[in-house]
Amino acid sequence: MRVDFTTYVDYRTSLGFLGSVIKYMAIPPLVPILVALYYGESPLPFLVAMGVMLVVGAGLERLRTDPDLGHREAFLLVSLTWLAVPLVGMIPYLVAGQGTVAHPVNALFESMSGFTTTGATVLGDISFETHSRSILMWRQLTQWLGGMGIIVLMVAILPELSVGGAQVIDQEAPGLSIEKLTPRIRDTARILWRIYIGFTVAAIAVYYGLHFFGFAPNMDFYNAVAHALTTLPTGGFSPEGRSVEAFTPAIQWAITFFMIVAGTNFALFWYVFAGEPERLTKNAEFRTYLFMMGAVGVLLTVLLFTGVGLTSVPNAIAPISGDLEHSLRQAIFQTAAVVTTTGYASMDFNTWDQSSQVILLLAMFLGGSAGSAAGSIKIIRWYVIQKAAVRELFTSVHPDAVRPIRLSDEIIDESTIRGLFVFTMTFLAIFAVSTVLIYLDSLRIGLELTAIEAVSASIATLGNIGPGVGVVGPMNNFLPFSDAAKLYMVLLMWIGRLEILSVLIIFTPSYWRG
Amino acid sequence: MRVDFTTYVDYRTSLGFLGSVIKYMAIPPLVPILVALYYGESPLPFLVAMGVMLVVGAGLERLRTDPDLGHREAFLLVSLTWLAVPLVGMIPYLVAGQGTVAHPVNALFESMSGFTTTGATVLGDISFETHSRSILMWRQLTQWLGGMGIIVLMVAILPELSVGGAQVIDQEAPGLSIEKLTPRIRDTARILWRIYIGFTVAAIAVYYGLHFFGFAPNMDFYNAVAHALTTLPTGGFSPEGRSVEAFTPAIQWAITFFMIVAGTNFALFWYVFAGEPERLTKNAEFRTYLFMMGAVGVLLTVLLFTGVGLTSVPNAIAPISGDLEHSLRQAIFQTAAVVTTTGYASMDFNTWDQSSQVILLLAMFLGGSAGSAAGSIKIIRWYVIQKAAVRELFTSVHPDAVRPIRLSDEIIDESTIRGLFVFTMTFLAIFAVSTVLIYLDSLRIGLELTAIEAVSASIATLGNIGPGVGVVGPMNNFLPFSDAAKLYMVLLMWIGRLEILSVLIIFTPSYWRG
Ligand SMILES: [K+]
Ligand SMILES: [K+]
Repeated sequence: MRVDFTTYVDYRTSLGFLGSVIKYMAIPPLVPILVALYYGESPLPFLVAMGVMLVVGAGLERLRTDPDLGHREAFLLVSLTWLAVPLVGMIPYLVAGQGTVAHPVNALFESMSGFTTTGATVLGDISFETHSRSILMWRQLTQWLGGMGIIVLMVAILPELSVGGAQVIDQEAPGLSIEKLTPRIRDTARILWRIYIGFTVAAIAVYYGLHFFGFAPNMDFYNAVAHALTTLPTGGFSPEGRSVEAFTPAIQWAITFFMIVAGTNFALFWYVFAGEPERLTKNAEFRTYLFMMGAVGVLLTVLLFTGVGLTSVPNAIAPISGDLEHSLRQAIFQTAAVVTTTGYASMDFNTWDQSSQVILLLAMFLGGSAGSAAGSIKIIRWYVIQKAAVRELFTSVHPDAVRPIRLSDEIIDESTIRGLFVFTMTFLAIFAVSTVLIYLDSLRIGLELTAIEAVSASIATLGNIGPGVGVVGPMNNFLPFSDAAKLYMVLLMWIGRLEILSVLIIFTPSYWRG
Repeated sequence: MRVDFTTYVDYRTSLGFLGSVIKYMAIPPLVPILVALYYGESPLPFLVAMGVMLVVGAGLERLRTDPDLGHREAFLLVSLTWLAVPLVGMIPYLVAGQGTVAHPVNALFESMSGFTTTGATVLGDISFETHSRSILMWRQLTQWLGGMGIIVLMVAILPELSVGGAQVIDQEAPGLSIEKLTPRIRDTARILWRIYIGFTVAAIAVYYGLHFFGFAPNMDFYNAVAHALTTLPTGGFSPEGRSVEAFTPAIQWAITFFMIVAGTNFALFWYVFAGEPERLTKNAEFRTYLFMMGAVGVLLTVLLFTGVGLTSVPNAIAPISGDLEHSLRQAIFQTAAVVTTTGYASMDFNTWDQSSQVILLLAMFLGGSAGSAAGSIKIIRWYVIQKAAVRELFTSVHPDAVRPIRLSDEIIDESTIRGLFVFTMTFLAIFAVSTVLIYLDSLRIGLELTAIEAVSASIATLGNIGPGVGVVGPMNNFLPFSDAAKLYMVLLMWIGRLEILSVLIIFTPSYWRG
């Protein structure tokens, strides 16, 4: 009996395109090499990585049989890219051999956390004593590169593949549509990357400018670049062990502004720069996004200002309750950090009361805008779900009424709405099961997690947010987990980043055959 | 200027039908009156209630203008019924003046918890020292009456009103369909009530039979009736302070069996008794229901048998870990109690480790079968959601494929599927917001809830389960909450019981006009 290995997926072409991606990945390590040369550190970790990327990339590239990418091949390429790039991206950590991240499982965790813009870390001691400046800059750069990829994935690729209601993103920027998949991706990517790079440069200028004019003593050029690289991709990695708490209020406000930018649909900025700012300001998703952040921010401000939402205040920073600017700044910063899924912290919110922590946890499920690098469920889905709920109430009373759901005056296709619901329920189901699994595994190794810590570890990785509360709080790390749990979270970051369904698809038999 | 009070809802007819319901409610108090006379207690609390029911009922009945009930009027009637009946049903608690439940807010809470078959209690001391046997029997009876109403609501009324995907219940029992709404409800109700009453009598016979033959010393006739009255409606009230822990293993197994019956679609039993048992055994929902209980039960058995899932064992009962029958019995009983949303307890699962408690909490979201008195989200919805998710994966690869979702060979309408999703998301959203509100209110009054306790109080009331964990554990009660929180939970029990959307509808402007 012969087994039929016929497959309808031209996986060689997917691997070929993957090869090109990996080959191009050999360019970015030039940045940490420059840093290494400037600070007199060894460039070897990055040279080794570049070598592997070039060889593996060129080797895979030869497999390509078709110059254009098919529908199914695109799914495979997307999943493989966010698996293969973190694998080659972990090489510098392994070669450098600095601290906890030299361990293979930790290196993979940190690399996946970087390229998925999650920002969860297994670096035990984040400081220049343990880590070279070039390695920490590489860590920042992985997020910036990941964010670049994600924005293109979100705006150009997933809507074409019509999975999980991603088509809805397309509706926001129909002007960007181009006929064929490959040229479309290329042209859309160019536009988006110009915006992305522009904002990154602007962030560097503002962060360093504040330093230059004396408003931020420790925001030197290295730090300005390092933080700009993780603000725009909603990444959240910081070479400072105390995250953004290490900087002045002026910097905290500046980062808040750029986080809000980073969580906005980048396709909308295209219109702003094309002289149509009302396409942004009148956009339903953008308005809901600002409204939700405002609502959560005000609630937290009240809790912090009155002191109800605090258990204790670390001595390192000034009192919060009673100080309006300070309460507002901490509340808005943390809200933006969580809603945009950036995951920076301007203070250790482990010192917050469970009440404020529970609100932050809930806000983690919101997510930023669809055409950004933000993770989690995303505002646009909640917006459509709420509209669908109102319609359900209406049609129950008027059974014969046909009432399509609109977004910026365009009717959303019913199959798109179904996709949104399926995505959201799948996200929540995986979140719930993962909470239990992470919790049970922590019991196994004697790590006494509380339920709320398990919840936060699960949503922080699946939602690509980064830190949670307690053990996985913003000033702590994911080191205490077992290797099994860390690898499981690598999986969560991977599928969460790729909108879950586009990964699950390649595990269905009907994807490969028929 | 004249305000236009024109409404498209014939609310007088709704109130008229409500009057009939309240008038018929004057019959059930005869049961506790018999109990009172037998035990030499005062029948006054029930006589007063009967009087009010007759007067209010007859008064409202006169408002009816139409002999038949319209679509919109049915919505109003359903919401009003589960509000007005608990209001008149609380009269005996107020008049009797025994213990904590004599307080108006507590009386309303207990009455709503009864008629919604929730089983959450504010009785501080559940014993015959504080409460008369007749009052405790009334408390049991409210659940039995509530369950009777819910089964008819689920099988005959909601599917007709096409709200939140309730049409799917109809698909299970199309043979029961009758043309017009009022006669249909009447005829379907007769069939279902015969089954419901039959099983209640069977449960009394088995519980008392075990006592009679010496297998259950303290399951006297009073207790047998009292527990049968709260098993079939998945209610969970018990006149024993220690719930089902007070009885022998034989009784615990017997109650487990009847809980599983109670969580099954009652329309399917109709076919079993009509000689078509395969309509039950081959039913997709029934199989999923058994499978889910089996999966959760086995997991808990392992946790209890190995002792991993236990923190300490109360001295009152025998050791569990290492004893297979005991582990299995506790695991299966608690699983059935939670999945069917009955909420009995055969032991204090506050002595369980957080790991097993988290599993129980997750199982609370499952819910029993659609055509039963079980609450929460319900198995059928999870079943359809899972099918919709698989389809989404399939259609992402085959964009042109049309693949309807089937249930027992019948195609489910897409609008029904949408309704199921809307219901589930609305349920989860209200659950999440309620958790935060309950949590914040507990802080306000200095009740130190943990996050997991707030979660359990929220799902236990919204899902009509009854007890949660910790403060609201099975041997504790909801007394510590503020009056505001209790009234909020009354609201949760009410909307949760009526499948949320059918209540929300009457608060939309489009329901009343246009
Ligand atoms: K992040
Ligand atoms: K119950």
